[in-house]
Amino acid sequence: MDKYEKVFELAKRRGFLWNSFELYGGSRGFYDYGPLGSTLKRRIEQIWREFYVIQEGHMEIECPTIGIEDVFIASGHVGGFSDPLCECMNCKEAFRADHLVEDVTEAAGTLSAEDLTRVIKKNGIRCPECGGEFGEAYEFNLMFKTTIGPGTGRQGYLRPETAQGMFVDFQRLSRFYRDKLPFGAVQIGKSYRNEIAPRQGVIRLREFTQAECEIFVDPRNKKHPKFERFADKELTLYSQEAQKKGESIRMTVREAVKSGVIAHEVLGYNIALTNEFLTKVGMDPAKLRFRQHLTDEMAHYAIDCWDAEIETERFGWVEIVGIADRTDYDLKAHARVSKTDLYVYVEYDEPKMVTRFVVKPNMGKLGPLFKGKAKAVADALKQLSEEELSKDQIIVTVDGEELTVSSDVVDFAEETVKVSGENVIPHVIEPSYGIDRIFYGVMEHAFDEENVAQKAAESGLKGAEAIEGAEKAEKAEKGSETAKDEAEGEGEEEARLVMHFSSAVAPVQVAVLPLLTRKELADPAKVIVASLREKNLLVNYDDSGTIGRRYRRNDEIGTPYSVTVDYDTLQDRTVTIRDRDSMRQIRAPISGIENVLYELIYRGRNFESAGKPFNF
Amino acid sequence: MDKYEKVFELAKRRGFLWNSFELYGGSRGFYDYGPLGSTLKRRIEQIWREFYVIQEGHMEIECPTIGIEDVFIASGHVGGFSDPLCECMNCKEAFRADHLVEDVTEAAGTLSAEDLTRVIKKNGIRCPECGGEFGEAYEFNLMFKTTIGPGTGRQGYLRPETAQGMFVDFQRLSRFYRDKLPFGAVQIGKSYRNEIAPRQGVIRLREFTQAECEIFVDPRNKKHPKFERFADKELTLYSQEAQKKGESIRMTVREAVKSGVIAHEVLGYNIALTNEFLTKVGMDPAKLRFRQHLTDEMAHYAIDCWDAEIETERFGWVEIVGIADRTDYDLKAHARVSKTDLYVYVEYDEPKMVTRFVVKPNMGKLGPLFKGKAKAVADALKQLSEEELSKDQIIVTVDGEELTVSSDVVDFAEETVKVSGENVIPHVIEPSYGIDRIFYGVMEHAFDEENVAQKAAESGLKGAEAIEGAEKAEKAEKGSETAKDEAEGEGEEEARLVMHFSSAVAPVQVAVLPLLTRKELADPAKVIVASLREKNLLVNYDDSGTIGRRYRRNDEIGTPYSVTVDYDTLQDRTVTIRDRDSMRQIRAPISGIENVLYELIYRGRNFESAGKPFNF
Repeated sequence: MDKYEKVFELAKRRGFLWNSFELYGGSRGFYDYGPLGSTLKRRIEQIWREFYVIQEGHMEIECPTIGIEDVFIASGHVGGFSDPLCECMNCKEAFRADHLVEDVTEAAGTLSAEDLTRVIKKNGIRCPECGGEFGEAYEFNLMFKTTIGPGTGRQGYLRPETAQGMFVDFQRLSRFYRDKLPFGAVQIGKSYRNEIAPRQGVIRLREFTQAECEIFVDPRNKKHPKFERFADKELTLYSQEAQKKGESIRMTVREAVKSGVIAHEVLGYNIALTNEFLTKVGMDPAKLRFRQHLTDEMAHYAIDCWDAEIETERFGWVEIVGIADRTDYDLKAHARVSKTDLYVYVEYDEPKMVTRFVVKPNMGKLGPLFKGKAKAVADALKQLSEEELSKDQIIVTVDGEELTVSSDVVDFAEETVKVSGENVIPHVIEPSYGIDRIFYGVMEHAFDEENVAQKAAESGLKGAEAIEGAEKAEKAEKGSETAKDEAEGEGEEEARLVMHFSSAVAPVQVAVLPLLTRKELADPAKVIVASLREKNLLVNYDDSGTIGRRYRRNDEIGTPYSVTVDYDTLQDRTVTIRDRDSMRQIRAPISGIENVLYELIYRGRNFESAGKPFNF
Repeated sequence: MDKYEKVFELAKRRGFLWNSFELYGGSRGFYDYGPLGSTLKRRIEQIWREFYVIQEGHMEIECPTIGIEDVFIASGHVGGFSDPLCECMNCKEAFRADHLVEDVTEAAGTLSAEDLTRVIKKNGIRCPECGGEFGEAYEFNLMFKTTIGPGTGRQGYLRPETAQGMFVDFQRLSRFYRDKLPFGAVQIGKSYRNEIAPRQGVIRLREFTQAECEIFVDPRNKKHPKFERFADKELTLYSQEAQKKGESIRMTVREAVKSGVIAHEVLGYNIALTNEFLTKVGMDPAKLRFRQHLTDEMAHYAIDCWDAEIETERFGWVEIVGIADRTDYDLKAHARVSKTDLYVYVEYDEPKMVTRFVVKPNMGKLGPLFKGKAKAVADALKQLSEEELSKDQIIVTVDGEELTVSSDVVDFAEETVKVSGENVIPHVIEPSYGIDRIFYGVMEHAFDEENVAQKAAESGLKGAEAIEGAEKAEKAEKGSETAKDEAEGEGEEEARLVMHFSSAVAPVQVAVLPLLTRKELADPAKVIVASLREKNLLVNYDDSGTIGRRYRRNDEIGTPYSVTVDYDTLQDRTVTIRDRDSMRQIRAPISGIENVLYELIYRGRNFESAGKPFNF
């Protein structure tokens, strides 16, 4: 089993991730988040909200996942959101045409459907499933289609990204923010991509969760007011230059912006913010880098674009966040299709006096010349540019008819007017997060298999071993419970599976374990559970199986701390707190235990300081 | 304008609800939650999680919104989730056929498509839009359809409810809970219903949010361990009996269960829990009742079913939650379609000795009689019931052939075996919440228009009036800012629009307002903002427009408390706290203000006790 399989084995067994529709044989590209997975995912999303909504002040909105066609005509998804598809003429299996030719040609991803068809024919590439011949490659649109309303209804699509919601609501948002740039809005929700043949588990899903932020900025000012916050933060950058050499560089945000590696401060700030978020949720900084899009992969309208990538064992470097300056492309596209001007009126600090060239049609002369059309001609003249008006013979179009006006029947003037502001089409900076990939990254980077005997020897954990022994005796007494446990695959193997989740995301923060299933131990344990819940900690009460087994179970789900209630507790009102990562134990009083654990979890309190060393 | 229109006018203007795709002319049945709406909605969902996930311990899962066909064949949605549709042959507009005949026939909702066609023809009902003639009525399936994967792909549907996810994952969930009944799981997410002609705004959406809980219980025990918690709670019940008389009754949960009005304790507990939730998020208890389904509207398999209904001005009583005992219907249906047994093995407290009648085929006699088929005959005999075996001539079917076996060639015996448990198909209790309708209910029940002058006279609010006067002078100085404000419809009208949101759901809990936009006032205001955010309070810093106008704006978005920083603050380090509902003001020190507000919001602290009365 490679690491991906090991992570998934644990994820399935412990209720993090399940294949969707498993009861009916499953369906590729869909996963269910089980009870612990759903909690972990929501905690990641909640931290994202703390970063983007609370700290940055970009309010959250919620738009439908079904969209009407106009939206995706404007966004370009109807025209261009596709992958090249090739179907086996024999077994009808569909493949990504570019993937089929990867081994025989360079830059397969840039070839057209026609080129791909040619390469496949030329190289005699056959169906990997049945050896059959392939039909022609064609572009397959990746949006899920549906029909809104009855009958032929109205064409609808499941949104391929949440971003369009913020663009479509731009005017409403601008009003909400009282037309003051910069402002931003976010959305966390489902997006859809009807993948041709998803084969990478949770890395390539047909239904996935995005967290996207659209920040609307004044294109004339891409400085960031809080730039200093991260200016001296060092990042791992895999810039266009660095990619030529094949090696990332370490550079501060300030250096990167100053030297032009990162286009401007707003982008630099947001890359650093992403770095902060990803390490906070538990991504290994050594397996995290920011890769700049190469010129030929960047959208033509984008000024600069960076992907946060994490290293995984099976898939190598995987993109999990994209941070781009998309300029005014999206707003202009929606303005064009909706025939609505989308801009913000930006007031000057002080009104400006502006001198401009104006035309003053002389109706006394135009009237006799053009009769009933004179007014229309005058209006048409007003629309012309200075250049067009400065010719001797001025040409205007009225009701589709070209008319020539001699310049001597028109008067010109220069006017000085007071202008208090101007219309600005904002540029959009977009950090776009793939939550499912981040979820998987958090799982893989937290996953560890430890040799318990070795670890015990190294750290002198006599206590833990003693408990293991005691357990075996205890286990012999108990019947089916243990059998059930073993059926779940929790054998006596030496390897300890442990998820080193950060306390910030762990789906269970504290396990409370009465040593035995007896009322005199269960009662004080339940009092502790209540006091911990009162502090809003995520608590798991577990009295099923031996204590060592319960420790292992909590290691597997990444519970940072376990609290054990035993017979000494009844004497001295203290309990054992076990630290997941070091497996060390301390003894601390029940009174105030909720504050001790809160400080361990949220205030970075040192574990050894939280009680008396115990059993080692 | 009726109340619905007034609520919507405010909701749009203030960023609660926007028509989706407004930029492109909109699409019926879809709404966007704006920044404040999205916050309010998430707070409602969060309280729901506190109730169902944290308190009740039903873990949350997250399944895809797209489902495969098998799931909805089993659930019955492919076959039966439809509304009768009738299309105008002239203008092609589609209508609900049952709605068309509501005025001319009773119980239109129970008629078949054929009957509806007949009634429409007989009564000469014509298209309300163009007067055209109608075609035949037919059943229109309300699931949005799509295709998973390329080509003809695989039929997919957007889920019409979240509940099926819990049923499909039943085995995984049962394992997660270590096969111990009762257990439950919840899902909060999008569901879809391709309405024929949605005409009731947010009450009837094509895409909506559900919060559903499936509680799997032992069918032999529908007592609830925490029944006493709500036993003496009085509820407004509109039972089947009460509906005959047309009047709700008030009854405790204990009485209702005891007298059989509510079928059992688990249902009673969950109805009371729903009541608790709905009043907590701000539903007016006087406009809340529980209506029992009539026998003819209840699903044939259901034991009992109650809807929580709220009273609204335009729509009358609206269903917002359904609470049903669905028995083992769903699990059996999925077991049948998936050909997988779905049950929980329930161990007895002590193994039971069970005596049973068994057949012991006598091979010595069967062999000669049936030769090569003897083994198959013996196996067939073992499958028969005691009754079938007790006849003189026993008939078995082997390979489709009926064979007669004389009873004297078969031996019988009684065996006593030790049985330690049995397989149980759990019953499902399902509380199902419509979040969007609850959202609208919270808005309408919180909405109020007050006559300010009258209110001021009643409560002697001299201060407020004085501020209004001061404001007009201030306003004259400021230019475009105020003009912009007025453009938003905040005229000088006497009515005060106020949302009386409970502090538990208010999207902004505290507004911090420097009296004027000057640094010496803004700086301390920002320090207060930071200290309130540190306490996890939702804060809005607002320095735009006159102070009275900002109070009004915060009244409209339902901010319970406003804190004003003025020039006295710089002298004595105190600020004004204004209470939204009474409009009264107190003066309190900046130091510790975050704790005072926290107590006002979460601990029910009395307002007058929180500082010195001010200006009244």
